[in-house]
Amino acid sequence: MAKISSPTETDWCIESLIAVFQKYAGKGMEFLSFKNTELANQKDPGVLDRMMKKLDTNSDGQLDFSEFLNLIGGLAMACHDSFLKAVPSQKRT
Amino acid sequence: MAKISSPTETDWCIESLIAVFQKYAGKGMEFLSFKNTELANQKDPGVLDRMMKKLDTNSDGQLDFSEFLNLIGGLAMACHDSFLKAVPSQKRT
Repeated sequence: MAKISSPTETDWCIESLIAVFQKYAGKGMEFLSFKNTELANQKDPGVLDRMMKKLDTNSDGQLDFSEFLNLIGGLAMACHDSFLKAVPSQKRT
Repeated sequence: MAKISSPTETDWCIESLIAVFQKYAGKGMEFLSFKNTELANQKDPGVLDRMMKKLDTNSDGQLDFSEFLNLIGGLAMACHDSFLKAVPSQKRT
């Protein structure tokens, strides 16, 4: 059995992705309530709606876990791109 | 300008995914050092190696950010599946 050391940042991240999904998951995650709370700080709500339409293939306004991960991935890519533009490579830790 | 309220759990998660990637990123993320530290608690290192082979399309032992997100997504899906098996649906918060 692998020796379990204290949770790493990556462990914590995966755990909290599942916790956030479960918090809004009910039957399938209600996107609107998720958007208005967890994504309230995202700059461009229009982008979120377009992402949601693309992900919500059966247009029931809900996301399953894999669609939710794709949404988080899309947001993370956008944030990472703006991070790369803002911080010149030699200054990155 | 959208009023910025305190960071949500989802904001925190996206931020820490970028921080973890940048910590190991150098030129492109060295998978081995990432695996042996951030993924040390994952039960089956063999699964990680197979995932890495699948993701590391140019076999240079490094992940770009999008491949890294796919890796995290795969791990999150596996953790979510075992969470669903372990916790009967009525008991989920």
